Amino acid sequence: MMSDARLLKALRLEAVDRPPIWFMRQAGRYLPEYRAVRAQAGSFRTLLQTPTLAAQVSLQPLSRFGLDAVILFSDILTIPDAMGLDFQVQEGSGVRLGRPVRTAEDAARLPCLDMSRDLDYVLETIERLRGTLAGQVPLIGFAGSPWTLACYMIEGCGGDFPTARAMVYREPALLEGLLEHLTQAVSEYLCAQARAGADCLMVFDTWGGLLTAADYRRFSLAFLHRIVATLRPTGKPVILFTLGIGDWLPQLMDTGAAAVGLDWRCDPHRSRFLAQEKRVALQGNLDPFCLFAPPDRVSQVTNALLQSFGSEPGYIFNLGHGIRPDTPLEAVSAMVAAVQHFGSS
Amino acid sequence: MMSDARLLKALRLEAVDRPPIWFMRQAGRYLPEYRAVRAQAGSFRTLLQTPTLAAQVSLQPLSRFGLDAVILFSDILTIPDAMGLDFQVQEGSGVRLGRPVRTAEDAARLPCLDMSRDLDYVLETIERLRGTLAGQVPLIGFAGSPWTLACYMIEGCGGDFPTARAMVYREPALLEGLLEHLTQAVSEYLCAQARAGADCLMVFDTWGGLLTAADYRRFSLAFLHRIVATLRPTGKPVILFTLGIGDWLPQLMDTGAAAVGLDWRCDPHRSRFLAQEKRVALQGNLDPFCLFAPPDRVSQVTNALLQSFGSEPGYIFNLGHGIRPDTPLEAVSAMVAAVQHFGSS
Repeated sequence: MMSDARLLKALRLEAVDRPPIWFMRQAGRYLPEYRAVRAQAGSFRTLLQTPTLAAQVSLQPLSRFGLDAVILFSDILTIPDAMGLDFQVQEGSGVRLGRPVRTAEDAARLPCLDMSRDLDYVLETIERLRGTLAGQVPLIGFAGSPWTLACYMIEGCGGDFPTARAMVYREPALLEGLLEHLTQAVSEYLCAQARAGADCLMVFDTWGGLLTAADYRRFSLAFLHRIVATLRPTGKPVILFTLGIGDWLPQLMDTGAAAVGLDWRCDPHRSRFLAQEKRVALQGNLDPFCLFAPPDRVSQVTNALLQSFGSEPGYIFNLGHGIRPDTPLEAVSAMVAAVQHFGSS
Repeated sequence: MMSDARLLKALRLEAVDRPPIWFMRQAGRYLPEYRAVRAQAGSFRTLLQTPTLAAQVSLQPLSRFGLDAVILFSDILTIPDAMGLDFQVQEGSGVRLGRPVRTAEDAARLPCLDMSRDLDYVLETIERLRGTLAGQVPLIGFAGSPWTLACYMIEGCGGDFPTARAMVYREPALLEGLLEHLTQAVSEYLCAQARAGADCLMVFDTWGGLLTAADYRRFSLAFLHRIVATLRPTGKPVILFTLGIGDWLPQLMDTGAAAVGLDWRCDPHRSRFLAQEKRVALQGNLDPFCLFAPPDRVSQVTNALLQSFGSEPGYIFNLGHGIRPDTPLEAVSAMVAAVQHFGSS
C-alpha cells in the first residue's frame, strides 16, 4: 500500500527499515538517458510541456537507481510562464522571462490562473505518472515559493536579483501585492497537483536566504505559512525548503509543514535536535560537491551523514541542493547504495 | 588620542557617544571621485599597486562623509598575485588568476612571500595613509581568509567555485597543505600591515559560508583561529567576517577576535545576545540593497537597525556586505547622517 511507502512513513514520523532516498534534480542533465530525451525534444520548453516526455524523464532515476520517490519533472517558472511572462531557457546564459514585472501596472496585468486550462500539461504529466507508477513509489509535486518566483519575475533572469532585492526597500507594498497574487497561484497549483495524483508537495524557497531575518519573515515565511494552511485539507504532506536558512530553521519548522529540507550547510545534529522538539521530519543534506570524490569516499561521507542524523524516525535522505549536471554517475550509484544498505550490514 | 577613537573603543567594548561607522568597499566605484582616479590610473591593477593613488582613494570616503575609520584600498588577491598566480581584473567578467593551483605540483611551486619585498606597495600605502591621517581616525588593514584565497587560487576565477568545493572531498590533504601555506602568508601579511601602521586588522572569509558545518570548522575556522593567535602579540584588534555565517556565529565568536562582522542576514537581537555572552564586539549589518530606497526610508531603516543593536558598548555600524557600485550617493549620505546623529535628538 502507498501509505506504507518509506517516504510517506518518514513524513509521518513513523519508523522505517532505512531512510528513504530521493534527490533534488534527480531527473536531469547528469543522466545520459535524460540528455537523449532532451535532444529528442529539441528544446527544454518542449520537454517540459510535453506530458509523455516529461513523464518519461521523471521516471528515469527510478529505473536506474530504484529510489524511494519520483519527483515530477518540471520547472518552478511554469507559473510565471502561464501568467504570460514568456519563459525562455537559453543554453549557457540560464533562464529569462521576456516580460519582467517592475511596476504596479505590470503587476495589475498579471492574470489569475485557471490551473486546468493554463497548466494542464503539468497536471497531465502527473496523471500519467500516477498511472505508470501504480502505487510503486510516491510522486512528489512541487512549486517555487512566492518570493522565489517574484525574484525571477521582477528581475527577468537569474543571478543575484538586484532589482527584486531593491524592491523590498523601494516598493514593499507593490512587492507584497505581487506575493499575494503568487501565493494564491502557488496554493491552487499545488492543490491541483494533489488532485491529479501527487502524494506529497514540496515548495522550493530557493531565494529566501537572500533576505534579512525580518524581511524573510515578512516576504517569504509568512506566505509559506499560508500555503501550508491552504494545503492542509488535501491531506498531502508538505516539504518546505529555504536555501540558506541558517539560524532561521526553527521558524520554518513552525509553519506546520510535515518536513523541512536542509541545505548542505545545516548541521545535522543541531537540525535533529530542533526537529525532535518541533515534531517535524527532516530532509537532506549531502553536499552535492561530495559527488566529485571517488566512490569509496562518497560511501564514507554518506554513511557518516546517515549516522549524524541518527535512527530516530522522521528522516529522508537527500542532497543539500540540486545535483550538478557534471556529476559522475558512479558517485551517484555509490551514494544511493550507501543509503539503501544503511543499517543492514 | 588614537586610542580614544570610537572604532577602537567599541572594539574594546568601551562606551562611545554613538556607534562608529565605516562600510565595506567604502572606497569604491559608487564614488565619482574614485572613478576619476581609477580612469587616471588606466587599470585596476595600477591603481592597486601605486601607493599614492591607493592612498588617495582610501581617503576619499573620509573626506566626503567624515567616517570613523579608513580602510586600506586594496584587494584580497594581492597575496595570490604576489605568489605568481597572475591576478587580472577584466571589465565585466570579474577577476581571473592566470595560473590556478590544481595539483600537488602547482601547490609545491608556490613561494613563501617576503612581505617587504613582495607586497611592499601595500605596506607603503599604509605608511602614507598613517602619515596623512596623523591619528585623525583609525586605519583598517585587511586580508582574505585562507579558504577564501584558496577558492580563487584553485578555481582561477570567481563564481561558485566548483573545482575548489570538489577538492574538499577529492583531495582534502592537498587543500589543507595549501591552507597551511596561506595561513602563514596571511598572518605575516597582517603582522606587516600592523607594523606599517594599521590600527585594526580585518579578515574577509567571503566564501566560508559555502562549506558544510563540519568543513567550515576544518577548512576555514581552524585557520582563522590560528591567524588571530598569531596576531595577538601585535596588540591590534582583529575583526573576522564570514559571509553566510548563519548559525555558526557562536563558533566565530570563540576565535578570540575583538569583533565579528555580520552579514545582512544575521538577526541583530540574536547576534547581540550571543555577543554579550561571548564578550565580543559586533560589526554590521545594513542590507546594501536598502540603499536603493528613497533617502527618508534609508534613514528610517538605519535607525531601526541601530535600535535593534541597542546601546550596550561594542557595536560598530557597517553594511552587511560591500556597497554596490550603482548605489545612489544621496542614500549613502542619509545612512551616514542617521548613524552620526543617532541618540543626539
